[in-house]
Amino acid sequence: MLIVGELINASRKAIGEAIRVQDVEAVKKVAIAQRNAGADFIDVNAGIFVGKEAEYLKWLVKTVQEATDAPCCLDSPDPQAIQAALSVHKGTAMINSISLEKSRYDALVPVVAGTDLKVIALCMSDEGMPETTEQRLRIADQLINGLVQHNVPIENIYVDPLVQPVATNKSFGFEFLNAVEAISKEFKGVHTMCGLSNISYGLPNRKFINRAFAVMAVAKGLDGLIVDPLDKQMMANLVVAETLTGRDDYCMRYLTAHRSGMFDF
Amino acid sequence: MLIVGELINASRKAIGEAIRVQDVEAVKKVAIAQRNAGADFIDVNAGIFVGKEAEYLKWLVKTVQEATDAPCCLDSPDPQAIQAALSVHKGTAMINSISLEKSRYDALVPVVAGTDLKVIALCMSDEGMPETTEQRLRIADQLINGLVQHNVPIENIYVDPLVQPVATNKSFGFEFLNAVEAISKEFKGVHTMCGLSNISYGLPNRKFINRAFAVMAVAKGLDGLIVDPLDKQMMANLVVAETLTGRDDYCMRYLTAHRSGMFDF
Repeated sequence: MLIVGELINASRKAIGEAIRVQDVEAVKKVAIAQRNAGADFIDVNAGIFVGKEAEYLKWLVKTVQEATDAPCCLDSPDPQAIQAALSVHKGTAMINSISLEKSRYDALVPVVAGTDLKVIALCMSDEGMPETTEQRLRIADQLINGLVQHNVPIENIYVDPLVQPVATNKSFGFEFLNAVEAISKEFKGVHTMCGLSNISYGLPNRKFINRAFAVMAVAKGLDGLIVDPLDKQMMANLVVAETLTGRDDYCMRYLTAHRSGMFDF
Repeated sequence: MLIVGELINASRKAIGEAIRVQDVEAVKKVAIAQRNAGADFIDVNAGIFVGKEAEYLKWLVKTVQEATDAPCCLDSPDPQAIQAALSVHKGTAMINSISLEKSRYDALVPVVAGTDLKVIALCMSDEGMPETTEQRLRIADQLINGLVQHNVPIENIYVDPLVQPVATNKSFGFEFLNAVEAISKEFKGVHTMCGLSNISYGLPNRKFINRAFAVMAVAKGLDGLIVDPLDKQMMANLVVAETLTGRDDYCMRYLTAHRSGMFDF
């Protein structure tokens, strides 16, 4: 299970302010906490700073990698911002994200073509957000083929089928889950991942819904998540989910997590 | 989601003692608590009382149905005990369970043939416990065909694919989950249900594992569970699981549960 820590996002008030005043320590603290909690990648987003996104994204990468040995997930649709961030990034970064929207696709394909970058391929196109499993499969198919043709190895592609709020349409949860399963089956070697908090948009007790949805998605084949790794119950759920889907030899990870106090809420 | 409350089981010390001394109030109290917590059926089991099982099972049914309007799930492999219990049962009972073990199958088919009883069909045969999805499918196929040929309507059949402990074999969780999905797809109209606590046998924090596994099984198509309905977090998980699998119009059940305090742990 690949965990991307989502907390260093400028749309969060404290982070936005930390970026604005270039508070190195505040950003490092959140990076270290996420890494210690099990994040494999640290997402960095400076999207609210129009005109300064490239400069700030680069600064975020430097700051995060001064504090941790984690690679970053570069969260931007802007190729200039991503190139600036990549110029200082150590290790193999992840790009969050390419989609089938023409302007985004055309801008990002040259950035990832022929590299060993990991790429999140978001199931969105100029026709709007997909609602059914079928629509998601069609977009995933085109994205995967496009990326592979541009020499992105299939195992570096992480398809995000796009979560939509279940409060909007009762079938949105299930259609997403079925898309995860269909994509995992149809495209051998490809990964699936997503940020899933959108599922509970508009409903109370959002974290409880998000945790159950994460477990369901893992049951359907999801192998990566963009989450708050400081949500202890979420992380505990993900350990259990891996154990229950045959990815934990002798339940060793589960037992280690138990002994380390991961289930003491 | 069909919920069978599992607590009135003679193998539990307090219940065994209550049955032995015929403590009507103790049994009623557990029945009412389970019904109020959302049980659709109340499981009754007097299996430890060799020679007295029929008498005690009948007494349990009378006692439970004096206290609640719930139908019972008659938990015994013994046709005499089941017939005794049925003789006083009001409404439509559920039989827990028939299997493909020859002696059990031959004894119980005459009890359910041509009735409107609901029947749990446990994926177990004289060859032992199934381990793979394939083995479960084969047993389910024979059980379903046999029951349908004996005029049990397919919608009254609840296949239990048989949960085995993930601590024994890392693939046991996933094989079970895949069996739920395969059976739901292969046999239109049939239900799937199970008692799932066996998944966590031998591991610490069992309830946490059981809750995650329940949610996963619902994602795979499970529509019935034999559980402790007094486990508030389990029941809350099941409400969320139904919402996330498209079974909750406008999230009404979720919102009602929220307002009633179901998520206040």
